[in-house]
Amino acid sequence: MKRAPLPVPSLIAAKRDGRALDDGEIRAVIAGAARGDIPDYQLSALLMAIVWRGMTTRELGVWTEAMIDSGERLRWDRLGTPVDKHSTGGVGDKISLALAPLAAACGLTVPMIAGRALGHTGGTLDKLEAIPGFRTALTTAEIGRVLARAGFVLAGQTARLVPADRALYALRDATATVESIPLIASSILSKKVAEGARALVMDVKVGSGAFLPERARARELARTLIALGGRLGLPVRAFLTDMDQPLGDAIGNAAEVREAIDVLRGGGPADARALTVRLGAEMLVLGRIARDRRDGARRIEAAIASGAGLERFRLGVQLQGGDPRAIDDPRRLPRARSNRLIRAARAGVVSRVDAGLLGRAATLLGAGRLRKEDRIAPGAAILLHAKVGARVSRGDPLATVAYDDAARERAARPMIERAFAVGPRAPATRRPLVMEILG
Amino acid sequence: MKRAPLPVPSLIAAKRDGRALDDGEIRAVIAGAARGDIPDYQLSALLMAIVWRGMTTRELGVWTEAMIDSGERLRWDRLGTPVDKHSTGGVGDKISLALAPLAAACGLTVPMIAGRALGHTGGTLDKLEAIPGFRTALTTAEIGRVLARAGFVLAGQTARLVPADRALYALRDATATVESIPLIASSILSKKVAEGARALVMDVKVGSGAFLPERARARELARTLIALGGRLGLPVRAFLTDMDQPLGDAIGNAAEVREAIDVLRGGGPADARALTVRLGAEMLVLGRIARDRRDGARRIEAAIASGAGLERFRLGVQLQGGDPRAIDDPRRLPRARSNRLIRAARAGVVSRVDAGLLGRAATLLGAGRLRKEDRIAPGAAILLHAKVGARVSRGDPLATVAYDDAARERAARPMIERAFAVGPRAPATRRPLVMEILG
Repeated sequence: MKRAPLPVPSLIAAKRDGRALDDGEIRAVIAGAARGDIPDYQLSALLMAIVWRGMTTRELGVWTEAMIDSGERLRWDRLGTPVDKHSTGGVGDKISLALAPLAAACGLTVPMIAGRALGHTGGTLDKLEAIPGFRTALTTAEIGRVLARAGFVLAGQTARLVPADRALYALRDATATVESIPLIASSILSKKVAEGARALVMDVKVGSGAFLPERARARELARTLIALGGRLGLPVRAFLTDMDQPLGDAIGNAAEVREAIDVLRGGGPADARALTVRLGAEMLVLGRIARDRRDGARRIEAAIASGAGLERFRLGVQLQGGDPRAIDDPRRLPRARSNRLIRAARAGVVSRVDAGLLGRAATLLGAGRLRKEDRIAPGAAILLHAKVGARVSRGDPLATVAYDDAARERAARPMIERAFAVGPRAPATRRPLVMEILG
Repeated sequence: MKRAPLPVPSLIAAKRDGRALDDGEIRAVIAGAARGDIPDYQLSALLMAIVWRGMTTRELGVWTEAMIDSGERLRWDRLGTPVDKHSTGGVGDKISLALAPLAAACGLTVPMIAGRALGHTGGTLDKLEAIPGFRTALTTAEIGRVLARAGFVLAGQTARLVPADRALYALRDATATVESIPLIASSILSKKVAEGARALVMDVKVGSGAFLPERARARELARTLIALGGRLGLPVRAFLTDMDQPLGDAIGNAAEVREAIDVLRGGGPADARALTVRLGAEMLVLGRIARDRRDGARRIEAAIASGAGLERFRLGVQLQGGDPRAIDDPRRLPRARSNRLIRAARAGVVSRVDAGLLGRAATLLGAGRLRKEDRIAPGAAILLHAKVGARVSRGDPLATVAYDDAARERAARPMIERAFAVGPRAPATRRPLVMEILG
């Protein structure tokens, strides 16, 4: 029998009017998105209606299970305990690049399926692809081979892994439908379950550079992830961390690879290094390799000090087709054609380095995408020379802007200038990098 | 200088978050939609955000002016006073087909740029195209020639007439973003101003088959249209009319053409005939041909009785490439392959004939579109044999369903059955066909 077409506009209308979709409707939408037979313009309207109206707990569970069922489900338990870490996305957040090999060096299996730049934040895949030759588009078999040898893998979704999410993820970026707690939660956890993770450390960003700047909303997402993880059999531990200013000093793909390598060498900015250790410690606890956080932190620090993490990273880069010489000689990473210094207009103490503005400026420069068809400019970057609390004199460099396209640099410049505030004295209180741990 | 790309996602995000767009942003969106260089998936997300957040009075005025400015503006004043009528769309609403030639026969110039099926309601263009050979895609020059000879024209938007609306109109249908008062108002009035109308009678539908079923919302639309018309220099008179049950007895493209011809011949269902006369009378008053509504009604009735309206219709059909023999021999209009009767399950008085359900059922049958790529089945129809207040015995025919596709008929049947309610006695009160006149 010929099937009558799915009446997509009436589903969209139902959600638009605040009615919950039933299980069959949700499965039909997700299957249609996965097969590509619901047009993008209908999906994006439905996504905006979901941003508006939200989802019930039941809708979210069915939606996420349908996403997982849209593709294959990987299993790595024979290799050890698969534990992953995921960030909600921030500006300058290159933690995964160093963390995955460090956790692997400590004995975990880290099947990290990562994403692309989304909104004003960077994407792990785009960063890795700044390494000459590095391939993030691996088959399932290749993922298995890299994971078996390196203990970690940093790859994109395969065509068969949560295809429904693949369709939705790129679209949300281009349609301002990212900032929805149920959509974020289902996108993250569907991939984590399908990639074979057995436990997850979540880094939920809070502040101007986060998708959910407000702490209350970030906490709501953390709780949604923990509850949804419970339904899906995936224990989730959620860190709320500061994203009012960028993480580390580099924003932009090649520049962030350089900074991750610095962290693996025992250097790098203090905040990036500290967060790597804390999140890694938690992964080791969840994977039952460390007895507690202190033990976990000690093990991650040892993997930095011994160079074991860097060796793993080098091995992973090589296994994924990347040029390992780029690790020892960062000049082999792409650079932008031109540089411009942003200088302090007056003396004082830096009181704000706005991650949201800098993320949008970096996107304009080509570090992210304004439309899903856009190509990334791997060398485009904003390098911070002063962060909150730094004392500067008039004319001191605040940031270096690396760019290929002068028109884009001109458009981005006022945003970058506005991102910095210099006041008479240091801010009275500073919130800690790790604000709260839930789950 | 190379222009930096328009950051569409951030505009969508602004509207999503309830911020008003500024004049430049609105003009950039409308110009981008008109040129086709903003992808459909971004436009549909923005449209859903507008459904959600609405528009300020200023936004709506700028939006509509930008729509008008996206294309050319026609002027017909040398031909007489251009007055138009527009309906917000209903089920079985074929009034325009008879009204335009009748008003022309009374001396008005009616440059009626009409639309396609939208949501669950029919479209005047789709109905006209059921006439063999009838062309609705006319050039500006052709519109002028038909108007000069027939006094009316029933055509689609040319590529140059409000191209921004062309892009948005089809998309809204497929993405459940029709039901927005500012979007409806700007779509209607931009076309009316651009087509050269100098006054407008609006038929704002109220009830289950209307886009805005609730009277309060319909009245809000009427007031928005009157205010926006004032800003644009277009006097608007708005009728609120009943659309709880379908208008007339036929739903479906060819079937509605037959019914319009019946009205022009002095027959047809009483409600369709009555509304044609009242709206026509108002057009003649606005165009200063009739001194008052009573005089206007008399003139429209005379144009029916003399056959002058039918002659104008025949001329218009011929000028637009249609086969005029279809007017005298309706068997030349397309018919569906199969028919099925829906019968009363019990005796009593028909207390409800749900226009919304019947409109959705007719759309499923092929009288409208579920996706913007769908083709219309011109013969698909629901023909009503009993309307509210009719006394029926068990087994009496309530409707005939005409269809080409058996699977679609099966899907539509329960909706059609549910559309009818038969109770023990006639409803105590019935609302009048014309509920209110504003402006």
